[in-house]
Amino acid sequence: MTQRPYNFSAGPAAMPEEVLQQAAAEMLDWHGSGLGVMEMSHRGKEFMSIAAQAEADLRELLAVPANFRILFMQGGGLAENAIVPLNLSRGGTVDFVVTGSWSQKSAKEARKYATANVIASSEADGHTTLPAPASWKLSANAQYVHICSNETIHGVEFHELPDLKSLGCDAPLVIDFSSHVASRPVDWSRVGLAFGGAQKNLGPAGVTLVVVREDLLGRALPICPSAFEYKTVADNASMYNTPPTYGIYMAGLVFQWLKRQREGDLTGIAAMEARNVAKARLLYDFIDQSAFYVNKVAENCRSRMNIPFFLRDESRNDVFLAGARERGLLQLKGHKSVGGMRASIYNAMPLAGVQALVSYMRDFEKEQA
Amino acid sequence: MTQRPYNFSAGPAAMPEEVLQQAAAEMLDWHGSGLGVMEMSHRGKEFMSIAAQAEADLRELLAVPANFRILFMQGGGLAENAIVPLNLSRGGTVDFVVTGSWSQKSAKEARKYATANVIASSEADGHTTLPAPASWKLSANAQYVHICSNETIHGVEFHELPDLKSLGCDAPLVIDFSSHVASRPVDWSRVGLAFGGAQKNLGPAGVTLVVVREDLLGRALPICPSAFEYKTVADNASMYNTPPTYGIYMAGLVFQWLKRQREGDLTGIAAMEARNVAKARLLYDFIDQSAFYVNKVAENCRSRMNIPFFLRDESRNDVFLAGARERGLLQLKGHKSVGGMRASIYNAMPLAGVQALVSYMRDFEKEQA
Repeated sequence: MTQRPYNFSAGPAAMPEEVLQQAAAEMLDWHGSGLGVMEMSHRGKEFMSIAAQAEADLRELLAVPANFRILFMQGGGLAENAIVPLNLSRGGTVDFVVTGSWSQKSAKEARKYATANVIASSEADGHTTLPAPASWKLSANAQYVHICSNETIHGVEFHELPDLKSLGCDAPLVIDFSSHVASRPVDWSRVGLAFGGAQKNLGPAGVTLVVVREDLLGRALPICPSAFEYKTVADNASMYNTPPTYGIYMAGLVFQWLKRQREGDLTGIAAMEARNVAKARLLYDFIDQSAFYVNKVAENCRSRMNIPFFLRDESRNDVFLAGARERGLLQLKGHKSVGGMRASIYNAMPLAGVQALVSYMRDFEKEQA
Repeated sequence: MTQRPYNFSAGPAAMPEEVLQQAAAEMLDWHGSGLGVMEMSHRGKEFMSIAAQAEADLRELLAVPANFRILFMQGGGLAENAIVPLNLSRGGTVDFVVTGSWSQKSAKEARKYATANVIASSEADGHTTLPAPASWKLSANAQYVHICSNETIHGVEFHELPDLKSLGCDAPLVIDFSSHVASRPVDWSRVGLAFGGAQKNLGPAGVTLVVVREDLLGRALPICPSAFEYKTVADNASMYNTPPTYGIYMAGLVFQWLKRQREGDLTGIAAMEARNVAKARLLYDFIDQSAFYVNKVAENCRSRMNIPFFLRDESRNDVFLAGARERGLLQLKGHKSVGGMRASIYNAMPLAGVQALVSYMRDFEKEQA
């Protein structure tokens, strides 16, 4: 097989090639069972073992403490924008830090169920900075505080989660970590609930990961659909309704791939983080030294996963994208709300992919100069 | 490859072998794009074409009229039990015909959002009959009337959909057709909305099909999560949130497989129906002539898809199941709420599979006599 193109899609996104190969090989017969994974009853011993292994591997990879439950759900981050307040708001006050499109959407949806206060926002500077936690106007009675810890569209990332306790706030922190989950460790001591669609760093679209502290279960509003009540889902080991079985299997293969990764002495998520730091540095450093390209995000909050950048002369955008496609560099067009370009370089993107991108960008700059 | 076992799982269920082979072959590179389907942006031209083709093929197969919208959603039938009343009940009265576990669950969940009247029930006879539509106590002001047109657990099927208009009722009929969709034609003139999880006859778990008459869009309660508002989903061609892309692709492969099916002069769903009638007749006829096995469902409402049956001497159940497994006849254990055995013989189950089951049942009966 010739070299596959490098796929910079923001999600659904590139999968590790080894994972796709294994899935193809097992499509008609999983481990001699005579069944493909898609054909297995979710209540049968084969699929139960797949789901249990996926959960255990994820718990190990992300070092999820024993007092947190891991749930595999459906509907993606957008559905969680309603499901979180249905489960945690108690119809009261909830706080939002708006740092880009995703936290903005979350706050808007929460207003269906609760009083949603925007306690800080970076809207004035086009979401190119992060408001410092010390400046947040935390509500005295908030049921939770919501942040999007990596904004996929604006390319802004919290490199440290806020320590709400040190700010005198006892409310649990909710993080939407869809687009950087498993790219770095999570400080669970600062988190009450984390959620994310799988389709960036974990597996295929259609699986939603929720990691929730046990004491937050059982608070759902009576209008919460049973299939989306965290306590019901937790009590039934994510099998209250038929789970997205194949998606969970694929995520499980990704978890096993993550566990196999090595970078020097590092393994698993630590290895991925080192690799992600190196990949991001290569691209940001190249952009910053260039007078041809620009990234507008403040240095202290640049995303390692989603890197929006612009050609200073935007009339060359189409030529840039066409040339990229010719070199096998796909899906580099920026989100319509931001414009320009965006390189999403999730775990499955190798360093060689970022090197190929930088090499193309350098050549394009020379050629156009 | 040796003969694959026959998988009688109620769902997730057997997939056509050709479909699995095609999916395996395309896993790393769909049609020369260099991308696997799982890796494609849902907004890209490749996946948009896959989704559009799937919808068009399904519309053709099921002869869905132009004034109905086809939606691909998430959460399965259980989530729809909430999503339907959130979208259609207007918080008023809704009518339920309870014919087994699934319609029972639907009625219970609807009570979160509406006044749910049980207007007929077969509970008294253990859900082995269907209450005649003329006996239903239809509410004067119902927003809709809900039936489960095939009860997966109890093995009861409506062989004709009720004609509510002829009963003097103008409310739309909602059908949960999860476990017999695409096994027979649908009389859309009698239907307002149909929903079903894909994991029995259409594809993998994690995709939910909703077919809804256009005039029923736009009635959602304000508390309906945006990701589950039918109008929002319809206005965005099922891409308001990231859809379960791989599941839609797999369902699309099943739709193409369905279109290729031939049975005499019949094609598509008509061919499948003829085959399903023959498969069900073979199994029911064998059970009925035997003094060893029994099916308790009234003849006029026996499901063609899910056939629960019992050994008259239930002490032999485990031996029966073990012997079946040895012959490559899998997942025949009945649902725990009903007991005994259940053979789910969806579209992907060939006649040869039912012949193998009957042959085993005959041999087992002789051997045990």
